[in-house]
Amino acid sequence: MVKRFGGTKVLVHFGGGSVKKSGLLSRVEDALKAEEISFVELGGVKPNPRSGLVYEGIELCRKENVDFILAVGGGSVIDSAKAIAAGAVYDGDFWDYYSKGIPVDKALPVATVLTIAAAGSEGSPDSVITHEDGMYKRGASGESFRPKFSILNPELTCTLSAYQSACGVTDIMAHICERYFTNTKEVEVTDRLCEGLLKTMIHEAPRVIADPNNYEARANIMWAGMAAHNNICGVGRGQDWASHGIEHELSALYDCAHGAGLAVIMPHWMEYVMNHDINRFCQFATRVWDVDMDFANPENTAKEGIKRFRKFLSSIGMPVTFAELGAKEEDIPTLVKQSQVSDKNRMGGFVPLDDKDVEKIYRLCCE
Amino acid sequence: MVKRFGGTKVLVHFGGGSVKKSGLLSRVEDALKAEEISFVELGGVKPNPRSGLVYEGIELCRKENVDFILAVGGGSVIDSAKAIAAGAVYDGDFWDYYSKGIPVDKALPVATVLTIAAAGSEGSPDSVITHEDGMYKRGASGESFRPKFSILNPELTCTLSAYQSACGVTDIMAHICERYFTNTKEVEVTDRLCEGLLKTMIHEAPRVIADPNNYEARANIMWAGMAAHNNICGVGRGQDWASHGIEHELSALYDCAHGAGLAVIMPHWMEYVMNHDINRFCQFATRVWDVDMDFANPENTAKEGIKRFRKFLSSIGMPVTFAELGAKEEDIPTLVKQSQVSDKNRMGGFVPLDDKDVEKIYRLCCE
Repeated sequence: MVKRFGGTKVLVHFGGGSVKKSGLLSRVEDALKAEEISFVELGGVKPNPRSGLVYEGIELCRKENVDFILAVGGGSVIDSAKAIAAGAVYDGDFWDYYSKGIPVDKALPVATVLTIAAAGSEGSPDSVITHEDGMYKRGASGESFRPKFSILNPELTCTLSAYQSACGVTDIMAHICERYFTNTKEVEVTDRLCEGLLKTMIHEAPRVIADPNNYEARANIMWAGMAAHNNICGVGRGQDWASHGIEHELSALYDCAHGAGLAVIMPHWMEYVMNHDINRFCQFATRVWDVDMDFANPENTAKEGIKRFRKFLSSIGMPVTFAELGAKEEDIPTLVKQSQVSDKNRMGGFVPLDDKDVEKIYRLCCE
Repeated sequence: MVKRFGGTKVLVHFGGGSVKKSGLLSRVEDALKAEEISFVELGGVKPNPRSGLVYEGIELCRKENVDFILAVGGGSVIDSAKAIAAGAVYDGDFWDYYSKGIPVDKALPVATVLTIAAAGSEGSPDSVITHEDGMYKRGASGESFRPKFSILNPELTCTLSAYQSACGVTDIMAHICERYFTNTKEVEVTDRLCEGLLKTMIHEAPRVIADPNNYEARANIMWAGMAAHNNICGVGRGQDWASHGIEHELSALYDCAHGAGLAVIMPHWMEYVMNHDINRFCQFATRVWDVDMDFANPENTAKEGIKRFRKFLSSIGMPVTFAELGAKEEDIPTLVKQSQVSDKNRMGGFVPLDDKDVEKIYRLCCE
């Protein structure tokens, strides 16, 4: 497959020791050797991947004339690989794409061997990196970021802990919700696809937590993770993404798992914006959470849906408050400042939030 | 876009006069002229596309050194374009792919401007052609058949009649059902995606029939048609496809619309195979058709689901019996013979049917 996409010199990019310990890295490298494809290694990607290693990777690619990047790992490794892929063929600083929102129109081809079902980066045109100079966590996108191929073997995810699995499920559900809450009317296909994936997560998450080796549940979660973020569920509809923006400052500051941060932020964001479109939240409550519609008091239905969502996250071991996450109320001004949100630079397509809104949502998380 | 995929000499392939009358063909050709891409035309594709025009197209491509095929039309035009694309770069008879089931590993690049939401050929690696020598209707597949790009503009489908629209919806629903009825266990993601698309069709079909210019409903049907057949709903699960096989002989013999034939065959096929997996039919009935589960008599639930499916098809103007389709009971032996199904050459992945089963299903359609 690497050859098919023109790869002759590969950068094998990975994270910590787990892919070495499990033997996966050797399997991948043996496969490259068998095809007589030369490669160089770059490990050390951390969760919430950093700019430092990206710069290192770019330099390595240039020095070694790398023409293909193979990411072996989860979303962090893949996002880091994408950043290197863009930087290696860009004259300026790769961070331009992330800080200025320039669409990525040129990058080395990237492919993935996925080990965590969560980020959906294996099928998406997106990448998120934290710049160590200021700890800003920002995203970049572009079709050249979409992997040429991704190997999704559910067996590789069976070694994940219950906590890692739950973080992944939360991230997947968040990717769906960011698309689900939209101002675009009459988007029945994508609504139904979103709802189907959410219901699958509700069904499968407790099963992998009860039995980490449940192959079928792992497989369903892995495929849902791809479908949740390759945008098949987002075509032709406005999307929100404020919760992701608000969360990014948490994982940038506390280095917590992105999924855990989302579990805290997303239900509080829902409560905060609920009145913007109570009918949509009723649809969410009735179709996804099987809440009986209270036609006399629709807001009760909407609230009950959010309550069940939070209860579900809690039941799979996710934190749902600042205290449970280990975040501090006194850091809120810093978090708001880091987000760079203001009256002019709002965040969120469903309800555009300013800095005051963001602060209020962080405060709701402390109650 | 044509240039991006290396097209320098294009075959513009289309059907009858409607794309001329509507001005669509001129718009497409003007766009090619504006990019200074030269092209040749080949019109005349009929529903249930035939081998004769395919041979003509192959010859034209070779003579004119065509390196890209642009299909402007519905599934028939696209399927014909794919057959030409394969034949133009194949030393033997293009029909080898269709008669012998050889995977199509080489073809000219094909792209589409879609005018009918139905076949899903705009996103699929499949093509179905009827050979005039014997009127055999057969399919071929291969990744090189997947269009390089497809332009899906719902406005182009607003001129379809209620009957054409209903045939399209039926075909879309059939593509989902062929994947839904599977022996693979624990395929929750794809089950839910299938159910979501089916529910969307139930919601949207009556709306386009009531108002052909309902843009939102047209858009949802168009996007569902793509998702129903690009295999996002079929990943990792066995599939059936007997109903399509059984139907193909109807449209080959009577030249009826494929969707209309499916409306007759599919519910009868369901009744015939129901007992193979009553639970799956109960899931179909409860999740898609909102049937209350009869726990004491599950088969009642299953039957009620099929009944509602047939009633729905009837309500959108589809034939549901041989008589309504204009098919004749006395032709059944011919139909069975043409299908080339036997005890050794069975049809269907969910329940492998032999010639006697196929005959019984045709007979059920006459009751």
